[in-house]
Amino acid sequence: MRVQAYAAQEAGGPLRPYEYDNGPLGANEVDVRVTHGGICHTDVSLIDDEFGVSRYPLVAGHEAIGVVHAVGDAVEGLSIGQRVGVGAIAGSCFHCEWCVSGLTNLCPSRDDTVLRGDRGAFAGHVRASDWRHVHPIPDAIPSEQAGPLLCAGTTVFSPLLVNGVRPTDRVAVVGIGGLGHLAIQFLAAWGCAVTAISTTPAKKADAEGFGATGFIASGEEGALRAAAGSFDFVLCTVSANLPWDDYVGLLRPQGTLCVVGVPEQPIALSPMSLLPAAKRVVGGIVGSAAHTRQMLDFAARHDIRPVVETYPVAEFEKALGRVREGSARYRAVVELG
Amino acid sequence: MRVQAYAAQEAGGPLRPYEYDNGPLGANEVDVRVTHGGICHTDVSLIDDEFGVSRYPLVAGHEAIGVVHAVGDAVEGLSIGQRVGVGAIAGSCFHCEWCVSGLTNLCPSRDDTVLRGDRGAFAGHVRASDWRHVHPIPDAIPSEQAGPLLCAGTTVFSPLLVNGVRPTDRVAVVGIGGLGHLAIQFLAAWGCAVTAISTTPAKKADAEGFGATGFIASGEEGALRAAAGSFDFVLCTVSANLPWDDYVGLLRPQGTLCVVGVPEQPIALSPMSLLPAAKRVVGGIVGSAAHTRQMLDFAARHDIRPVVETYPVAEFEKALGRVREGSARYRAVVELG
Repeated sequence: MRVQAYAAQEAGGPLRPYEYDNGPLGANEVDVRVTHGGICHTDVSLIDDEFGVSRYPLVAGHEAIGVVHAVGDAVEGLSIGQRVGVGAIAGSCFHCEWCVSGLTNLCPSRDDTVLRGDRGAFAGHVRASDWRHVHPIPDAIPSEQAGPLLCAGTTVFSPLLVNGVRPTDRVAVVGIGGLGHLAIQFLAAWGCAVTAISTTPAKKADAEGFGATGFIASGEEGALRAAAGSFDFVLCTVSANLPWDDYVGLLRPQGTLCVVGVPEQPIALSPMSLLPAAKRVVGGIVGSAAHTRQMLDFAARHDIRPVVETYPVAEFEKALGRVREGSARYRAVVELG
Repeated sequence: MRVQAYAAQEAGGPLRPYEYDNGPLGANEVDVRVTHGGICHTDVSLIDDEFGVSRYPLVAGHEAIGVVHAVGDAVEGLSIGQRVGVGAIAGSCFHCEWCVSGLTNLCPSRDDTVLRGDRGAFAGHVRASDWRHVHPIPDAIPSEQAGPLLCAGTTVFSPLLVNGVRPTDRVAVVGIGGLGHLAIQFLAAWGCAVTAISTTPAKKADAEGFGATGFIASGEEGALRAAAGSFDFVLCTVSANLPWDDYVGLLRPQGTLCVVGVPEQPIALSPMSLLPAAKRVVGGIVGSAAHTRQMLDFAARHDIRPVVETYPVAEFEKALGRVREGSARYRAVVELG
């Protein structure tokens, strides 16, 4: 079928209508008619060729909500018209050791929606290369709010599972943005005491609304050091080059600093901040298919929703601009159909 | 009682006989008559004031094997004359959350044998401030070989427990020295496939003798990168400033680099080596009292022994010199009584 998409034609250029033929539908494949597309900062980075790997025309987008349009012969458990989402991972091999272990997000041949060139989710339709990465959306979650859960949501939720975060843990979330505002909600519902960390106090009331009971303004002199030894788990959602020893210093013994934002500079850790209390610094990534479904169920049960700005497709550039300049509160979604 | 010890009188100075009175015995305290003292590199560093914190006269030593000489009123399960060891931790509070959780090695008021000034284990007697840190030595382990297990042994064994290393894991040990030669033995008995990593191939045969089935000479151009993505757990026992991204690169997805050696420079990690496969960098420290007893039992059952050079007390300086210059194969022990 012909797919009507929105493609950047050059680095930083505006999205223009773009059409391609998506070819025959494979046995495990699913075509989804997209109704809502969340915008992640990675989409803007690719449109702007920040990583130097973009090829044009480029169709970004990896937080698609819509309905099942067509299914391949081997697809199970999905029906035409069913409301579903396709996130950052649209397929994986299902036979490597990672897929067999359920860790589809570690599959070396996984199909990253956002790295497909002109086959991203900013389009009327998006194809998942495997139906097990097409996730039914719980009825309780409106379509305009579901998209950001698929990338931002699983990226902050998966580390809670992988790192064994417990409800008794004292936790902090660094950065109150697209990822952070979801992380605070998840961790509060997880049963944890949650402290939000932001450069200034500007978002303090918002953070408390999301469930934080503590707040640190990291830009205030000495604020981080005053909180040394306070947390079992610190989730860092920002891309800034932080004073890492101060953040490791926030940890209690055997505590974990989980980094899901990508800073430009190396993360430099003094051995004496890491070793004496057996602390940990770990990377976090978007969740597996199983994590994603657990996250959707958890969000539905606990009324966890991203705060979104919704834009009609005619205002796609405005929506991208909000993400580009970091002013979206807290996530931008475009109505695609 | 009067304790006959061996004290450095100045930075880097030779050990001289030194006497002090250890005062009345507290209810939970135990005096151990020392027969063998292992020498750890930390002892030499303190004697030489490498950390700039040493005060003299300084009695180092924290790998003491001996027999119970006297016990306080509250001591249980130890009898006079019983063969025991006192390691790097000679006491902890047993009422903080860490002690109550069994993690006595994280107790904020733990009694580090080596940081006591003139009360270290290079002496005729050493006092443990709590009997739960006085460890019975299994009959199968000779006294001259037991000492190094108490610091070097638990330091490499505890991370296996804390980090959930499994027998199915592919593991590597960086550095074949006092710590590394024990780590290889523990991990081989743990059921893991063990690769030893050393700058040159000089210790390859030794490493295989300890149970390694793989070997990487890290000083050979491209050797580390050729092994990228090979290991679930890499235990780094050296104090060198390594090319950390190459070592993180050795890990498989969700793999752990555990650092127990203390390099001088910060550990710098590229975000893109840490994040995309959710890798982990963790610090490791000497084990808890429970870890230490599990380690001793495991070593006894699996015939795991440090390779030691044993010196009479008259050759104390020679033994210290071997450790100072890094030539001991693989650990030096002094007969103290």
